[in-house]
Amino acid sequence: MNNFASFADLRAVCLDLPSGHPAASAAVAQRENVLTKPPQSLGRLEDLTAFLAHWQGHAPPQLDRVDILVFAGNHGVTRQGVSAYPAEVTVQMVANFASGGAAINQLARTGGAKLNVIPLSLAEPTEDFTAAPALSESDFIAAVKTGFDAVPRDADLVALGEMGIGNTTSAAALAAALFGGGGARWAGRGTGVDDDGLARKRDVIDRALARHASLLDDPLRVAAAFGGRELAAILGATLAARRYGIPVLLDGFVCTAAVAPLYKLRTDTLAHALAGHVSAEAGHRALLDELRLKPLLDLNMRLGEASGAAVAVLVLRAALACHVGMATFTQAGVSDAR
Amino acid sequence: MNNFASFADLRAVCLDLPSGHPAASAAVAQRENVLTKPPQSLGRLEDLTAFLAHWQGHAPPQLDRVDILVFAGNHGVTRQGVSAYPAEVTVQMVANFASGGAAINQLARTGGAKLNVIPLSLAEPTEDFTAAPALSESDFIAAVKTGFDAVPRDADLVALGEMGIGNTTSAAALAAALFGGGGARWAGRGTGVDDDGLARKRDVIDRALARHASLLDDPLRVAAAFGGRELAAILGATLAARRYGIPVLLDGFVCTAAVAPLYKLRTDTLAHALAGHVSAEAGHRALLDELRLKPLLDLNMRLGEASGAAVAVLVLRAALACHVGMATFTQAGVSDAR
Repeated sequence: MNNFASFADLRAVCLDLPSGHPAASAAVAQRENVLTKPPQSLGRLEDLTAFLAHWQGHAPPQLDRVDILVFAGNHGVTRQGVSAYPAEVTVQMVANFASGGAAINQLARTGGAKLNVIPLSLAEPTEDFTAAPALSESDFIAAVKTGFDAVPRDADLVALGEMGIGNTTSAAALAAALFGGGGARWAGRGTGVDDDGLARKRDVIDRALARHASLLDDPLRVAAAFGGRELAAILGATLAARRYGIPVLLDGFVCTAAVAPLYKLRTDTLAHALAGHVSAEAGHRALLDELRLKPLLDLNMRLGEASGAAVAVLVLRAALACHVGMATFTQAGVSDAR
Repeated sequence: MNNFASFADLRAVCLDLPSGHPAASAAVAQRENVLTKPPQSLGRLEDLTAFLAHWQGHAPPQLDRVDILVFAGNHGVTRQGVSAYPAEVTVQMVANFASGGAAINQLARTGGAKLNVIPLSLAEPTEDFTAAPALSESDFIAAVKTGFDAVPRDADLVALGEMGIGNTTSAAALAAALFGGGGARWAGRGTGVDDDGLARKRDVIDRALARHASLLDDPLRVAAAFGGRELAAILGATLAARRYGIPVLLDGFVCTAAVAPLYKLRTDTLAHALAGHVSAEAGHRALLDELRLKPLLDLNMRLGEASGAAVAVLVLRAALACHVGMATFTQAGVSDAR
């Protein structure tokens, strides 16, 4: 499964993924049509249930085990003054996750989900990508494997998120490398930089794009050059979920940027992933458009740590509850449309 | 409280409503700023918690008791062939609510809410409003009172919804009467009429507007002339909630049209109400714009029966869970912004 040791191996994994189960989604759609409501009147909730069935491979789908995986990493590019917070906050927030004090702890509990926080070599930040690739091939592959191995085979859904001071700069550079437009298109305020900080982020991104111009046509090399370990892990977890028939809920800008290289390799690679929300971070909406993902929620959130995906879990639970619990027209003695 | 017996009495009630509690919302905002996240990074979730506190009058707010009230009514205008379903479906769906088979039963359970279904004289449809006002003054006031009395004083939140074959025509006529634009602007497909049915709806609305031209400048008379009993009850429940300091979650097009006369009387009258979602029914987005309401969700739903509002309850629970459960920067030992 995860026996990849190089960019080439990983590319082969990405290009050989299982497809979904049309019979399962068709069975869901068939039942939806006889439930006591006008056809399609639950809108996206009906689509979501069919989506879950399509990737889980059974109808009805289930959400008995929902795992939220939050990967944390540190970024050499923080030395360029791109964040409103000092780099040590990554470690401090991982401790906060462990003691239950972060937003994601509350949201995981609300959504009946299991939270697993996976720090990746926090004492070893990536290289400053204005000077060198953020990660070597072997470090990148190792982080991808960590993400791959973090996905429990028996999960019904995984929601992915991240924590890493500096990582909106990493994500913006990654998006710029894959889709063009430079720092002006993709840099946002992240945790809250001021105008000067934003100008620095744009400049950092543009310098990095020039520095790594020779590798921009290879999505996995782009992921290693600009992305941190937590982004690589999200990419790996997304592949593992596909391999195991587990639908994926993506979180915000960083999480979406982390999987964008998969889409560039082959658009179908993200077919099992949903955008939990569109965040307030500047580039997220444009990135979702590039990936043809329609977010479930638009609540002006921009926290990361899987918080938007965790709120979206609630919508999936609502969808499944209707599908499983509703009576049919016949059962309820309700007249169908004339 | 509910000692109103005429349009004039009711207007007086509408113009003498309690205001909110700025100290409570300010206390919420103050705490949000010291929780372990960048300021405002939970976006709308933070606003929602402050909103709940503002109307409940205490910080933190609570959601221990959430009531979903679904009002059901029948409409004389169905004789004009404006619905895809026969009128007896209203009664059949009320039975389905009672036996737990409808979407709202599943969604209420998912949201930890108490569901209360209130049928209003289902054996006595309103008048066909192309020929006469749908409700007399006394019948309208009686339905408003039923809604008013259905709100439990100790609820922390009420979500409002409706069931009534034919009522999207009623709602569209009401919206047209209040905001202009005729059937062309406001009629939609409701439970799913075809092109001919949609044309009939538009024509019915335009004929009714001409028929009742003399009362279009009085929002409460408009509500009686076009709205059914379930719409009047939603209006009454919204007033009771304001009186008792209970925030309101509105559902879709019909529910929103039901409270639109309050906004026309005085815009502040709906200040304690949130739009749970924007539905797929044609006129809903325009109506929310008229009322300056920004929906929480956009999931292409168009079922009614409070289903969209019930999904939005989940978002409010997520917001409150973060606010109450998160650690502060000091508690967690996390460095604040530089």
